[in-house]
Amino acid sequence: MKTTVGIIGATGYGGIQLLRLLADHPQVDVVYLGAEQNVGIPIQKLYPFLSMDRVTEAVNITQITQRCEVVFLSAPKGVAVKLVPDLLAGGCRVIDLSADYRFHNLKTYEQWYDLPRQDQATASKAVYGLPELYREQLTTTRLVGCPGCYATASLLAVAPLLKQGLILPDSVIIDAKSGISGAGRNASADNLFAEADSTVVAYNIGRHRHIPEIEQVCSHLLGGTEIQVQFTPHRIPMSRGIMATLYGQMRDPGLVTEDMLMIYEAFYRLAPFVKIMGNGIYPQTKWVTGTNNCMIGLEADGRTGRIVVVSVIDNLLKGQSSQAVQCMNLMLGWEETLGLPRLGYYP
Amino acid sequence: MKTTVGIIGATGYGGIQLLRLLADHPQVDVVYLGAEQNVGIPIQKLYPFLSMDRVTEAVNITQITQRCEVVFLSAPKGVAVKLVPDLLAGGCRVIDLSADYRFHNLKTYEQWYDLPRQDQATASKAVYGLPELYREQLTTTRLVGCPGCYATASLLAVAPLLKQGLILPDSVIIDAKSGISGAGRNASADNLFAEADSTVVAYNIGRHRHIPEIEQVCSHLLGGTEIQVQFTPHRIPMSRGIMATLYGQMRDPGLVTEDMLMIYEAFYRLAPFVKIMGNGIYPQTKWVTGTNNCMIGLEADGRTGRIVVVSVIDNLLKGQSSQAVQCMNLMLGWEETLGLPRLGYYP
Amino acid sequence: MKTTVGIIGATGYGGIQLLRLLADHPQVDVVYLGAEQNVGIPIQKLYPFLSMDRVTEAVNITQITQRCEVVFLSAPKGVAVKLVPDLLAGGCRVIDLSADYRFHNLKTYEQWYDLPRQDQATASKAVYGLPELYREQLTTTRLVGCPGCYATASLLAVAPLLKQGLILPDSVIIDAKSGISGAGRNASADNLFAEADSTVVAYNIGRHRHIPEIEQVCSHLLGGTEIQVQFTPHRIPMSRGIMATLYGQMRDPGLVTEDMLMIYEAFYRLAPFVKIMGNGIYPQTKWVTGTNNCMIGLEADGRTGRIVVVSVIDNLLKGQSSQAVQCMNLMLGWEETLGLPRLGYYP
Amino acid sequence: MKTTVGIIGATGYGGIQLLRLLADHPQVDVVYLGAEQNVGIPIQKLYPFLSMDRVTEAVNITQITQRCEVVFLSAPKGVAVKLVPDLLAGGCRVIDLSADYRFHNLKTYEQWYDLPRQDQATASKAVYGLPELYREQLTTTRLVGCPGCYATASLLAVAPLLKQGLILPDSVIIDAKSGISGAGRNASADNLFAEADSTVVAYNIGRHRHIPEIEQVCSHLLGGTEIQVQFTPHRIPMSRGIMATLYGQMRDPGLVTEDMLMIYEAFYRLAPFVKIMGNGIYPQTKWVTGTNNCMIGLEADGRTGRIVVVSVIDNLLKGQSSQAVQCMNLMLGWEETLGLPRLGYYP
Repeated sequence: MKTTVGIIGATGYGGIQLLRLLADHPQVDVVYLGAEQNVGIPIQKLYPFLSMDRVTEAVNITQITQRCEVVFLSAPKGVAVKLVPDLLAGGCRVIDLSADYRFHNLKTYEQWYDLPRQDQATASKAVYGLPELYREQLTTTRLVGCPGCYATASLLAVAPLLKQGLILPDSVIIDAKSGISGAGRNASADNLFAEADSTVVAYNIGRHRHIPEIEQVCSHLLGGTEIQVQFTPHRIPMSRGIMATLYGQMRDPGLVTEDMLMIYEAFYRLAPFVKIMGNGIYPQTKWVTGTNNCMIGLEADGRTGRIVVVSVIDNLLKGQSSQAVQCMNLMLGWEETLGLPRLGYYP
Repeated sequence: MKTTVGIIGATGYGGIQLLRLLADHPQVDVVYLGAEQNVGIPIQKLYPFLSMDRVTEAVNITQITQRCEVVFLSAPKGVAVKLVPDLLAGGCRVIDLSADYRFHNLKTYEQWYDLPRQDQATASKAVYGLPELYREQLTTTRLVGCPGCYATASLLAVAPLLKQGLILPDSVIIDAKSGISGAGRNASADNLFAEADSTVVAYNIGRHRHIPEIEQVCSHLLGGTEIQVQFTPHRIPMSRGIMATLYGQMRDPGLVTEDMLMIYEAFYRLAPFVKIMGNGIYPQTKWVTGTNNCMIGLEADGRTGRIVVVSVIDNLLKGQSSQAVQCMNLMLGWEETLGLPRLGYYP
Repeated sequence: MKTTVGIIGATGYGGIQLLRLLADHPQVDVVYLGAEQNVGIPIQKLYPFLSMDRVTEAVNITQITQRCEVVFLSAPKGVAVKLVPDLLAGGCRVIDLSADYRFHNLKTYEQWYDLPRQDQATASKAVYGLPELYREQLTTTRLVGCPGCYATASLLAVAPLLKQGLILPDSVIIDAKSGISGAGRNASADNLFAEADSTVVAYNIGRHRHIPEIEQVCSHLLGGTEIQVQFTPHRIPMSRGIMATLYGQMRDPGLVTEDMLMIYEAFYRLAPFVKIMGNGIYPQTKWVTGTNNCMIGLEADGRTGRIVVVSVIDNLLKGQSSQAVQCMNLMLGWEETLGLPRLGYYP
Repeated sequence: MKTTVGIIGATGYGGIQLLRLLADHPQVDVVYLGAEQNVGIPIQKLYPFLSMDRVTEAVNITQITQRCEVVFLSAPKGVAVKLVPDLLAGGCRVIDLSADYRFHNLKTYEQWYDLPRQDQATASKAVYGLPELYREQLTTTRLVGCPGCYATASLLAVAPLLKQGLILPDSVIIDAKSGISGAGRNASADNLFAEADSTVVAYNIGRHRHIPEIEQVCSHLLGGTEIQVQFTPHRIPMSRGIMATLYGQMRDPGLVTEDMLMIYEAFYRLAPFVKIMGNGIYPQTKWVTGTNNCMIGLEADGRTGRIVVVSVIDNLLKGQSSQAVQCMNLMLGWEETLGLPRLGYYP
């Protein structure tokens, strides 16, 4: 007997990745596809490459709670807030891909996302959906707030350093590079091929919305100490993939690259999707495209006393949809790797 | 004393290419930039890479005719029809980059462009702005209808064959590949980087709007015989450039590649921007990027009795804006090559 | 009990795609990876994205025949000729991805591939590995010569037309566009990113080596009548994917697009990997990336009396490695779709 | 009477950019093209897009000194060392694009470039060819060592900060992103389109050879104090362009973005090719493609107390060949902007 699953917001990039992943998942049955726009339209019409004759439906909470044991939400900010309390009350487990349930302190959300919030009770139940750091909590929660794509790549790069006290916390600088699919499918002149090809641009320097969730988790890793992280996102001319290049001042400049690699290996020994590279190997984003993997390489720079960590993920999979499925696997007590892509195609 | 020039529709891709070219042209002074949207906004604000402090103005015919000796129009279909008669009456020379003045038979325009037309008198005065075929007529006209980008690449490939009677006219098949800038700067999901990268797609098979102008000129080259051309445009993942690959059944299958190359060389001996490749060399679009050149290579296939011609241009320059400047040079009796780019950067 | 499989030439693009596919195949066990170069090196060292600790071995026929029930060869032309007779004699089933066993008439091979051949006996046993046309023969053969990538896309586009006598055979023109991975992993200045990006180029006009196999199968579809096909390959700036745009003169110009689509639907009703698009939909290469699918769209052009067919595949999967696995499934009596990717990631 | 100019190493990317620029320069005559390989071959044969019938010659010092007043060297490391003393002795002015004459302290060169050096006398005469910092010295020298591409982008970003004492010197971190043409035209599997497309990779973390020249100039700006700069280069999927994203700890965290922009404006008020963006505008590499411009945007991050500076150049022009021409203009007392591209094409 398979678990019944629904997707709200099934027609954006996040939604169709979810749909494609869940179609291959051995334990679930996708029984509901909700959409705000394009209701009643076969998925195959919207995305001819998806050979599926499923049709989108309007968002009706009663219907959803009757038919679905698990609900994924892939909607813009502010939508989940309105739906999640009723979905939980109706007995569903909920995995939200937006920012709505990432924050314990709703003041942080209000400040960075410009939306008032009053549902502290619900928000307090949510677990941050980064399995490598919150595996235990994910096995018992009914509500997950999945991380942002940049946050996933950044936090997996920085976690061992902060947790083990290897760097000065306030020295953390993250220079991130993302493919353009991160901007979603909304038409904007800036993201047209002719504008976005053959160019790189920085944006939202010091004020990207993934900063507060990175800082919240970093602070958690530090046992509560507040921390300010410098974060700069760049858009580079490719569709998929994120690289986070992280800089930190080492407390002990005597540590060499091999030492650091061993520490990372140990830290992630139970994480089936995190791969630590060998000495001198820096991972490319293409090496993880089409997979739920995060690959990490690093260099301890004896000359400057800094460590430089390079972390790569597929922004639409580990940075979004397949990580949500990984969370579902844990919530339902299944094998963490179930139905998740581990080998990509290359080149 | 420089010639005063204005541009109507200065803020699209065509307009800014024109602006950039005319800024470097030794004989003209750009005195007016007209725009429908974004009036009163400095060009540099719209396009920070253009280090110019010029400001766009509303479209006012009296103003334009008083200040400009030459006017370029780079506007959507149907706009030129409304403005050109008054601009001509006001004494301007007019170079229109839209399709409005490409057709002698306005029925053809009405049929392919879905717009009614009544200005046969004005349309009859217009010269088709392809200097390699209509150089003489361009030196005496006051109104030019510049060719479409696909039509430019296609006609320069086919002209020697039809003019010299080397192929069966109805055998002409043109398979064209264009960069994405051809779609302009209008935001559409299809042209987003994430959608348009790493893919190729055919569109408007057998019904692209550049077909009737190709057929009009082909028919003209044949001395009036009507002709149906098979034309398929493809969008490929690059910003600039068009390649037309042309197939024709040779009347004399005994002709070899060298013969054909000599015929092309002779046909274009007075055309400073058409470069015929050596035997065995097929030009790439990148070889003409940033220039007003058209490069042509070909193969006479003895096995099949067909000739295959490959013609490449920069769709935004020879296919649009620099060809318009080339027309202006001829209209004003200047050196044809004046102010036009002939050497690109590579790679 | 799984079937034991080996790969000779495991480290090229073809080989690693095979390796990746077979790793996920439920019925096989990859027990041998052979390589000419890089012997004894872990695959993960050559391709860090492949999280596998397998090691390449030298090519030793005795070893291979003892350990493997099925052998895939992914080597340059002329290598298979030397190995296949011994592999067959040793009891292996052989699936060759090179051109060595594609031809019934070895004179054709000698002429187009510049290599002498004497093994007519072995060659006569080989079946051309295009399951959509040779499904029956594949279920009983022990030797398969897999099609070239261009040939796969072209033949699936043209087969219904020739088989049903819908077009004039000698009117077939195929204008193909391929991503750059088709050139393999050999370093050449022409295929450097800086040279190959933002450009399109035609090559080997009228003399590409996939022409004779296209003509051999076309002739077979015509019941033996010889045919000359016009074929022009183009390299476009993307890694994966091939589009074949096919032109043919219809015998009955009264047939409309809907008629033709129905004929294609019927022709491929038993082919699980061929998808015929709806009227007005032309498939993109990206729609099949990462899958074994071939998508086909078409237009019957009433104006010109021609049909234009657009066919797309992933050149490294349906055009190479996954098609070889599809052949294996048929040879071994398994479900044709077993272990083969049908849903891609997008965008 | 034009100045006679020669290029040694005319057939690499650097050489052909130089050739193309000098062909349009109003004051020079290119009279000699030297090459190690491909001697006696017309340039047009190597680069069909360059419509020039010039032929490369062997490298003969006597010939060169007799015919050329100015010599550009665009050769691998170690070549200039052997030729420059004789060229200077023969009366030529020399502009070297390699690293050979960038260092005052030859020990630094020996250590980072693995080549022994004994020509301290010649090296001491060389001026570092970054006109924005060494304009005066360039007007009187006969030998210029042109900066590396990364160094140009990085130094123009950091110079005002160090010169005015606005940041803690040892806090400088530069995260750079380069197009692939920076790797030159040597075929390597890593730079094949199929490998390098759709991916980003870091390399030479903490040990890239442009680090010592960046540190040498930084130290000079600090009045001699030594400094260690953290530098990480990344290769991103585009042909041309470099972005340097620079991080520094501000001494006075009270300074806001507007203050910093004014300081940059003032610092570069005499630099015709440096453009400081408005508040909130971060330049893209595409905005400078095809020009000698460097565009700089920045953000003073009050939250973290750091300044983030984004600097972009065309790596093959301002980062290499057009900067060399800019140096020539200064050496010969000409207008600094003579013959240099200031407006690019877009998109």
